[in-house]
Amino acid sequence: MPPSSKPGSSNKALTRNVGAADKPCKVALIGFGTVGSSVAKILVERRNTHLRLTHILNRNVARKKVDWLPTDVVWTENIDDILSSDADIVVEVMGGLQPTEDWVRRALTSRKSVVTANKQLIAHCGPELIALAGQMQQQIEFGASVAGGVPVISGLHQGLAGDELFKIYGILNGTCNYILSQIESNGVSFATALREAQKLGFAEADPTDDIDGLDARAKLTILARVALHCDVAASSIVARSISPIDALDFENASQLGCTIRQISRAELKDDRLFAAVEPALVQLNSPLARVEGSQNLVMATGIYGGETVFGGHGAGGHPTAVAVVSDILAIARTNEDTTKHAPAKEASAKQAPSRDASRPRQKSPAVTADFVTRHYLRFLVKDRPGIIASLASILAKSEINILSVLQKPNSSKSHLPLLITLEECPTSLVEQALEQINALDFMVQPCLHLPIL
Amino acid sequence: MPPSSKPGSSNKALTRNVGAADKPCKVALIGFGTVGSSVAKILVERRNTHLRLTHILNRNVARKKVDWLPTDVVWTENIDDILSSDADIVVEVMGGLQPTEDWVRRALTSRKSVVTANKQLIAHCGPELIALAGQMQQQIEFGASVAGGVPVISGLHQGLAGDELFKIYGILNGTCNYILSQIESNGVSFATALREAQKLGFAEADPTDDIDGLDARAKLTILARVALHCDVAASSIVARSISPIDALDFENASQLGCTIRQISRAELKDDRLFAAVEPALVQLNSPLARVEGSQNLVMATGIYGGETVFGGHGAGGHPTAVAVVSDILAIARTNEDTTKHAPAKEASAKQAPSRDASRPRQKSPAVTADFVTRHYLRFLVKDRPGIIASLASILAKSEINILSVLQKPNSSKSHLPLLITLEECPTSLVEQALEQINALDFMVQPCLHLPIL
Repeated sequence: MPPSSKPGSSNKALTRNVGAADKPCKVALIGFGTVGSSVAKILVERRNTHLRLTHILNRNVARKKVDWLPTDVVWTENIDDILSSDADIVVEVMGGLQPTEDWVRRALTSRKSVVTANKQLIAHCGPELIALAGQMQQQIEFGASVAGGVPVISGLHQGLAGDELFKIYGILNGTCNYILSQIESNGVSFATALREAQKLGFAEADPTDDIDGLDARAKLTILARVALHCDVAASSIVARSISPIDALDFENASQLGCTIRQISRAELKDDRLFAAVEPALVQLNSPLARVEGSQNLVMATGIYGGETVFGGHGAGGHPTAVAVVSDILAIARTNEDTTKHAPAKEASAKQAPSRDASRPRQKSPAVTADFVTRHYLRFLVKDRPGIIASLASILAKSEINILSVLQKPNSSKSHLPLLITLEECPTSLVEQALEQINALDFMVQPCLHLPIL
Repeated sequence: MPPSSKPGSSNKALTRNVGAADKPCKVALIGFGTVGSSVAKILVERRNTHLRLTHILNRNVARKKVDWLPTDVVWTENIDDILSSDADIVVEVMGGLQPTEDWVRRALTSRKSVVTANKQLIAHCGPELIALAGQMQQQIEFGASVAGGVPVISGLHQGLAGDELFKIYGILNGTCNYILSQIESNGVSFATALREAQKLGFAEADPTDDIDGLDARAKLTILARVALHCDVAASSIVARSISPIDALDFENASQLGCTIRQISRAELKDDRLFAAVEPALVQLNSPLARVEGSQNLVMATGIYGGETVFGGHGAGGHPTAVAVVSDILAIARTNEDTTKHAPAKEASAKQAPSRDASRPRQKSPAVTADFVTRHYLRFLVKDRPGIIASLASILAKSEINILSVLQKPNSSKSHLPLLITLEECPTSLVEQALEQINALDFMVQPCLHLPIL
């Protein structure tokens, strides 16, 4: 979308609707990639806010410069130019943990508020950064760090503040959802679906973080903090890859009235946080089953309000930039309010509120992935008499009840797929039984084990 | 859910987690019906906020009093007891336009902030009340007025503030959605479905406001204001009843890959607001088609972020109360911030911010229901040769293109249903043609005309 301001026009246009009494809120941008340039675009196109883009930092500025930004925007490769400027808000859309964490800390101690889209940064050291912001009487906002353009962080923080949320389920990784949707609709193998996704730009050259659930885990860590008031380390949450999922599993799931999605979930129960990121069977009538392509969805459940669903574009420059600009506006409003109402001398110190006085306290519960659910077990075996008897007897010894068994006729004798579903029982019990089962001589490969939600 | 505080315990319990320095925020409740008592319940059960329920107003207090509220809550039938109290926030969950509007105005001029769940009040005089609140340096919040527990107002106002929204579609009336779902799944008549809904408490004894779209229209008026920044009168939006919808229409819709829902929609285009509340055909793969029973759903579309969906419980005491308490918490935080940062003398005046400085200006565009869409026409005719020719020739004269015609064999000769769908064209063009068509002698009843979204 071309910016509606003339190339090279001055920043005055951005503030023309604002009375002289209202000082514009100055914004410095760190990172001018896909999200960064979208943020800049929205800032210049939306004229009725009094936000003013003053600085852009990126490596190799000469290569990055564009002609559609006001001429008075300062382009720099040096963070000190921003830290020593009079920018009110530093927007970090550069990504990575270092030097980002350093720069964000220095921005806060330079008494600048921060908006970031960096899930790894917030998952890794969000509480410390929030505490630092509080000390410095600044704000740090991170609405874009989870589910991109879907306003789930503000929804949980503001709109559902009156509830006591205890459960959060989500599809938080568009790459995995795209790949699984492709396996489902085209019956292709995981490897083929991944290659297609890479070709179309839905998956990166190194897709490990997405495929293995590390990206979604960082987002789930943030959601657990905001929704369930649980501060836990991302590394304490189990993440399992979607790579073993095959077209056959979608056929099986379909027979069970389900599909397969990468589900991120956290549930507070009996002072423990049950949490995991993993492929799971979801009922076809669940909103989670209907998330298509690279869309994201979050379901939050509270003891008073029941289930609330947020859905939309989880990634992409423009949707993510909307979340960033929404955060900038929220900070601008707070600054404006406190500046208006604080005495003149204090105003220059830009006192921003510590927002946590009326919030529930944060907890740090023990984290477990030992969900009690139904289970899907897909075996690949060398056929011979007595296989089902062997499997069933190990399961019986663990007091695990079988719900259904499916063995199709006419399958290969050397690679016979076999499906067993189990009644509700703790995941750990199943895993123990599978240790024994996986050691049996007829097993061609370890059993694929998925929860049925 | 029983409150976890002992019956008759003192209000101190509510504030035990709050340091002595933090003054509790005092809340007065007007209306102790389903929503009011849920609000009170959440306030006493959630101990880690420093909200304090101080007053409850209702008719016939003696009949209403409950034993699970702190003994120091003042019960009254007199609004002056609340207006002259030191309550910081007045929560209006009484409903109706009068005396409610009066009381809300007096609460604001008594320098109390207001939280209301009253869609008719906000649709009718929201802008005036917001202006009055601004003058009085108070806030008025109305998150519960649209879609009950679904945090759509805060989502639009905060989370999507960075976008420029131009389109909003919603299922905003649980009663209509329940009735239509019942006709669809049980193949019953409208009258039967309505009676069932009344029996189960999903429809009121006088269901006119719901059935005829007036309830949803009030909500759409509020959404247009918050999402599209359009101040328009509710009465300027066309509202059409769902009462002509029959099981046959669902059969027809299903053949077209659609279902039928009461859709509230507003779209800003070429300086006009296209808006209507009416039954419409929606594609089965749209999130709107999948809203079940009394659930609500809102889809907002922005030029940057695309489509965002909010879904959940649109009504009910607890979900609506969550929205109310979320609004109370938002005001409490603002009060806390401004009190902290304002000088001592001003603090007592509780200066609350005017929030609109960084918001787009409100517009008052012309309102039209003349959407350009495909159309569904269901005729009931006395069969004789030449009927389709007559209909087709009138449509052709209006330059309306027919998309499909369906006449089933073996239908009754005296009451023959006939389905015609039309290619995209302005609604007004179809209405003009239907005026002529409805006057034809073979028409048993006026044609049912629905948009196909």
